[in-house]
Amino acid sequence: MEVTMDDKRVVIVGAGLAGCLLATLLGLRGIEVAVYERRDDPRASAAERGRSINLAISARGLAALGQVGLEEQALSRALPMHGRMVHDRSGARSFRPYSADGTRAINSISRTELTRALLDVAAKTPGVRLSFGCRLTDVDLATGELRFETVDGPRLERADVALACDGAFSAARRAVTFRAGFTFSQDYLDHRYKELTIPARGGDFALDPDALHIWPRGESMMIALPNLDRSFTCTLFWTAEQFAALTTPDEIAGHFREHYPDVAALAPNLVDDYQRNPLGSLATIRAWPWVHHGTGGTGGTGGTGGTGGTGGTGGTGGTGGRGAGATLALVGDAAHAIVPFFGQGANCAFEDCVEIDRCLAETGGDWAAALASYERRRKANCDTIAEMALDNFVEMRDRVNSRAFQAKVAAEHWLERRLPGRYVSRYELVSFTTRPYAEIPSRIRRQNRLTAVAAAGLAGAAGLVAAAIRGRSR
Amino acid sequence: MEVTMDDKRVVIVGAGLAGCLLATLLGLRGIEVAVYERRDDPRASAAERGRSINLAISARGLAALGQVGLEEQALSRALPMHGRMVHDRSGARSFRPYSADGTRAINSISRTELTRALLDVAAKTPGVRLSFGCRLTDVDLATGELRFETVDGPRLERADVALACDGAFSAARRAVTFRAGFTFSQDYLDHRYKELTIPARGGDFALDPDALHIWPRGESMMIALPNLDRSFTCTLFWTAEQFAALTTPDEIAGHFREHYPDVAALAPNLVDDYQRNPLGSLATIRAWPWVHHGTGGTGGTGGTGGTGGTGGTGGTGGTGGRGAGATLALVGDAAHAIVPFFGQGANCAFEDCVEIDRCLAETGGDWAAALASYERRRKANCDTIAEMALDNFVEMRDRVNSRAFQAKVAAEHWLERRLPGRYVSRYELVSFTTRPYAEIPSRIRRQNRLTAVAAAGLAGAAGLVAAAIRGRSR
Repeated sequence: MEVTMDDKRVVIVGAGLAGCLLATLLGLRGIEVAVYERRDDPRASAAERGRSINLAISARGLAALGQVGLEEQALSRALPMHGRMVHDRSGARSFRPYSADGTRAINSISRTELTRALLDVAAKTPGVRLSFGCRLTDVDLATGELRFETVDGPRLERADVALACDGAFSAARRAVTFRAGFTFSQDYLDHRYKELTIPARGGDFALDPDALHIWPRGESMMIALPNLDRSFTCTLFWTAEQFAALTTPDEIAGHFREHYPDVAALAPNLVDDYQRNPLGSLATIRAWPWVHHGTGGTGGTGGTGGTGGTGGTGGTGGTGGRGAGATLALVGDAAHAIVPFFGQGANCAFEDCVEIDRCLAETGGDWAAALASYERRRKANCDTIAEMALDNFVEMRDRVNSRAFQAKVAAEHWLERRLPGRYVSRYELVSFTTRPYAEIPSRIRRQNRLTAVAAAGLAGAAGLVAAAIRGRSR
Repeated sequence: MEVTMDDKRVVIVGAGLAGCLLATLLGLRGIEVAVYERRDDPRASAAERGRSINLAISARGLAALGQVGLEEQALSRALPMHGRMVHDRSGARSFRPYSADGTRAINSISRTELTRALLDVAAKTPGVRLSFGCRLTDVDLATGELRFETVDGPRLERADVALACDGAFSAARRAVTFRAGFTFSQDYLDHRYKELTIPARGGDFALDPDALHIWPRGESMMIALPNLDRSFTCTLFWTAEQFAALTTPDEIAGHFREHYPDVAALAPNLVDDYQRNPLGSLATIRAWPWVHHGTGGTGGTGGTGGTGGTGGTGGTGGTGGRGAGATLALVGDAAHAIVPFFGQGANCAFEDCVEIDRCLAETGGDWAAALASYERRRKANCDTIAEMALDNFVEMRDRVNSRAFQAKVAAEHWLERRLPGRYVSRYELVSFTTRPYAEIPSRIRRQNRLTAVAAAGLAGAAGLVAAAIRGRSR
């Protein structure tokens, strides 16, 4: 379909990963777009300390980066991780490949570096204008006015289409958070996170750089991802109580010696990192609808002495209305932030951007129609990966260590090798394909009937071997 | 325990049902409390049109009102409803008592009248100061400052303890909505609501006033509750699409003639009511924690380009901290608004107030300890009634009409009569006891084993009777 864009003023809030990719895609489509970012230009400043340094980019993210010519560059600055290296309490390790044939990898890359690369591409794209140090303070969808605070004072922008790419705690989303009919939730885990560093050791990686390292400890865990400078970034995922229980240097060092003995030896700044680095929260954000029009109602806000859950009269809610004022669309984490345990947050946000671009192509640049398609197509996919990410936390910190789980993975890989393309594990479908997330659970359920049979067979075989060994050692 | 209050400045936001009851309970305990209400004094103004006019007060609400001497007065101004009157599409009716012995009733009362009565009592209670027309615009828990907008300009109040009784769309709650660690959700139903009136007919009720009338229509329904002026307030619970599909007078009148034939004849202003009355939303609000201290972190707000669901570093969240600044506690709908289908929203909010009062007594007036107990004791109860209220919507609009459901209720009542006190239906446990909501599901599960047996027996017997009748009519 030939694309003839309406003459809409398009603003993107947030120049993180999603904002930069989306701005570039729109620019390549001939759409002028103004991007406002709260922070300073990261190409001119140092990275923040202890804030989610690594990303794991996999098939979906790479496909999206390919659309703006960044796939090869990203891969060249990433470290492939072909499996999980599980560390037990004795310091013993075992490697579990991510794919049946052992060749597939997810890619550890610096968030800051990837953002900088995307900013470079966006800045070079005709029609894209980037502004930094602009903190969004107010969005009025009725008038289309966006207000920003800058070091030079307030700044006003007008938009017909505002795309909120400003993350899990989106400032733009606040314009609609209290609208009647806006279903919204933020669910925090009891677990928090804190980052530590394992520096390079004699100029080389202190651990195998080809793996995502996991120290599963039942209720909690630590992971480590390799960096280009041959360090590892470790992330503790502990409950708030566990963090609170360790404060003095002796307590901290003692705890690591006992529970993470191999790390204690490799991380000389462990106590300092632990004491100085911030504690992060982990939340799942769900929202619906993702697209909001200026003519929608604003009932139900600020009511006092209301009527149970029956307040908020007047708003029309929903996405049906379209008229005067601006349209706001939530994109990426602003629409559906997920916990990081499947390494899919950025990959999923990138898919949103590609979908918006595809919908604009399909509708000939009709923003209202394109955004309606975007939210309809993406919602179930994003709900699905949100659930899978929560589920994967239990797998990583606990199940990964169980014999039943190991038997299941072994059975899966056995089936995958024998039924190539017909049997594919959930992990591979999520990480090594671009199949819509929402289609994965039903496919897995169908496959599980096969696995159950195979796992029983393998477990039985393993039992016989174990019995034979026990018998021999007597 | 002897009560010696700390010298805390206590502010209640919202002078609705919960705010007034809580203010009175605190005043009776010797605690000075300032109450701020957004609206004007309802004792001096007319009721709002079409906004949830009736409440169904039952055992829990009556017990709470009894604590401030209002139980008798409330009952004298209420109309008891001893059961459901189910209206089918032909206009035929059948009455289903709420209790096995037919004597128990829930009580239809005007929200405005009950609020006015509670305001009268609060205003007469020493230590309670009421201010109307004060819209809360800002809460700063670090300093304890609450800012209000009034017709006379801004007004500043300081609080050590702020109690948010300002309803499902609480303005006070916004002070903590974006705190890291504040788990929060607002879930809107696809269904909306609209009120209609069946006026008195020849000076008398047009329908039996001793029942809650239901027109179950599968996906949607209408209900009607009697008023003291012998009118009925009807509430349509339809999907947004159903409301949108009916707009012209002919469409409206035609629809009611077809689907609610008995109402069409009794409601002369049906079309006008339908066209003029607002459309309300139905939401379930969940929040945790309910108690927030000024020293808690405020991380995670306004981040742009954040890190998936992993933003929001710095906040301590939770309810552990206590130090400088104010404490905010969410009460009633502000903490846990529910859908109206079990008639428990106000009853549940009243229980919150009584629990706070009890906790203050038990802790000798230690607010921090009392509020910590309050939220711990009430949370599971309020989660449970929220689920039961959602479930009851399906029961009212759909299951109430099914033979299986009718057989189940008949079996329950049969068991209740034979096992008095040992077998009590869910409806009775919720509406006619003050047993904690959270204990009800497990008790019901235990009882259900009995019911299944009895229902099978009754259904079998009914089947034999039906077969006999069919046989005779041939």
